[in-house]
Amino acid sequence: MSRVSFEDVLKAHERIVSHIHKTPVFTSSSVDKIAGRKVYFKAECLQKTGSFKARGALNAILALKDTGNSSAGVVTHSSGNHGQAVAWASRLAGLPCSVIVPQDTTAVKQDAIKGYGANLILCESSPTSRVETCNKVAKETGQVIIPPYDKYEVIAGQGTIAVELLTQVPDLDAIIVPISGGGLISGIATAAKEIKPNIRVYAVEPVGKDLEHCLREGKRLWPNPPTFLDTIADGIKTQQVGQLTWPIVLSLVEKDVFTVSDEQIKDAMKFAFQRLKLVIEAAAGAAMAAVISQKMKQLDPAIAKVGVILCGGNVDICNLPWK
Amino acid sequence: MSRVSFEDVLKAHERIVSHIHKTPVFTSSSVDKIAGRKVYFKAECLQKTGSFKARGALNAILALKDTGNSSAGVVTHSSGNHGQAVAWASRLAGLPCSVIVPQDTTAVKQDAIKGYGANLILCESSPTSRVETCNKVAKETGQVIIPPYDKYEVIAGQGTIAVELLTQVPDLDAIIVPISGGGLISGIATAAKEIKPNIRVYAVEPVGKDLEHCLREGKRLWPNPPTFLDTIADGIKTQQVGQLTWPIVLSLVEKDVFTVSDEQIKDAMKFAFQRLKLVIEAAAGAAMAAVISQKMKQLDPAIAKVGVILCGGNVDICNLPWK
Repeated sequence: MSRVSFEDVLKAHERIVSHIHKTPVFTSSSVDKIAGRKVYFKAECLQKTGSFKARGALNAILALKDTGNSSAGVVTHSSGNHGQAVAWASRLAGLPCSVIVPQDTTAVKQDAIKGYGANLILCESSPTSRVETCNKVAKETGQVIIPPYDKYEVIAGQGTIAVELLTQVPDLDAIIVPISGGGLISGIATAAKEIKPNIRVYAVEPVGKDLEHCLREGKRLWPNPPTFLDTIADGIKTQQVGQLTWPIVLSLVEKDVFTVSDEQIKDAMKFAFQRLKLVIEAAAGAAMAAVISQKMKQLDPAIAKVGVILCGGNVDICNLPWK
Repeated sequence: MSRVSFEDVLKAHERIVSHIHKTPVFTSSSVDKIAGRKVYFKAECLQKTGSFKARGALNAILALKDTGNSSAGVVTHSSGNHGQAVAWASRLAGLPCSVIVPQDTTAVKQDAIKGYGANLILCESSPTSRVETCNKVAKETGQVIIPPYDKYEVIAGQGTIAVELLTQVPDLDAIIVPISGGGLISGIATAAKEIKPNIRVYAVEPVGKDLEHCLREGKRLWPNPPTFLDTIADGIKTQQVGQLTWPIVLSLVEKDVFTVSDEQIKDAMKFAFQRLKLVIEAAAGAAMAAVISQKMKQLDPAIAKVGVILCGGNVDICNLPWK
């Protein structure tokens, strides 16, 4: 695969469709009033494993299985949701699986990974340590690495969300997507722009990522080695967009980025719990925060219908970020 | 109307269908494993106003409007969800509305009622005080009383859930329904037994209601005056089944009743938040508690597919019953 094509997304959809949920789309008149337009929430928090990551992981693992070189199984590193998804997908595919997670990953995510029968390996909480540990395990076991975003099959799998969403709401003018490594947004942008060339795809980032600056300059301005952002949104704390995802993001995503603070995320999570009755994690809270932000109100009025990806629901409900 | 017929439920459905959500049905393989059968959750927590009560209230109010004698509007008493539903339905129908609630009703429910533009009136927290205040307001204003369950149009409205659910999952063997005044379960039983005569309808009650005893004796054994149960499930704290609902419950609902404690309800709510990613209130937690109870495991193995009504999601998320 060189880059990811719409055909790759459609092939991914065919591969995974019988195993994943076609997640429902929710609307709320009170949200519409606040946002000044119609908002359609794609509830990937209700996806298998509690996040959209099930899509990309399953596509990558089923594609690997098709090659016939998968007997040693797979390994990945992930702050939680991708790890959970790889563990789930491996069990479904009948392959052995190791998952490396930073030691500060929430208990609920660690337990879920173990619950799918994967071998859980803790590492230090830095992007570098994750990658090194993962490479070491891969070398020792012969397991194939399934990275969280920098793999075309993963990106294609995440793109299936757009295929579904644009069937459920065909006349969307824009889609708002939380960004971390960029697998979700690049998959969605690839599919959505092909289905509806005029659609706009917006990223939502935690404070400190500075994506808008990079996009406007057309350059990766992030410091190295890669670091994690200081944010309550643990699912989107990776500062740098990936190497494979970056060119896709740069060419297809709006330069205008929604940047949200922890305080906004927290308020938005509460709002989603109360109004949508959905349990969402902070990364999805970031998307909700964008929806109820001032910036949203001021968006081009021609953008009448907006899709919003509520990417996951794996939050520790005994440690919600409010009293 | 004498009693409620399946035709009344169908007529109610026709009347309200364009205004309410056809709520989604969710499944969970981990729940199926625990329950020892396939479980289908009907998510009325995602209904307009956050509970199934929108159905009955809207049907009663639109039926009243059809009579042409509705200009003074409506009044009701309710611990919250029915009040919210009547307020919402009145606004939709363009009628004035007063809602009497016990003074200990959660803030989130009070605010919601006021948010729909209704006149909120506080009363003492006893069934007797609610009824008296309601009668007084009705007399003074000429507003028509929309009771929470003892009205055939309300019962018929709630029955529309069964019509939907048995379209979504036609081969259900049983439906599990939380019971308070009995409007929800009598509506559902009326419709479900007509669509699928062999289906079994089970009630879930908080400890202290003693419904099974009443059903087996075929008598209303509850003490008078009516009282509220001491339960965290504020939506189902009415001890006595209604006068109109009782004969329906007695003739159509299983004598075998699921009785659940506060501790079970709390654990079940947590379980629903974590596994289903749904924000449910304690009354719906009671239904979930039945699903994961020992009694459920021991139910007739011929009951392979069970529908469960998650009746509402109006919980104060800043005061969840766990740390």
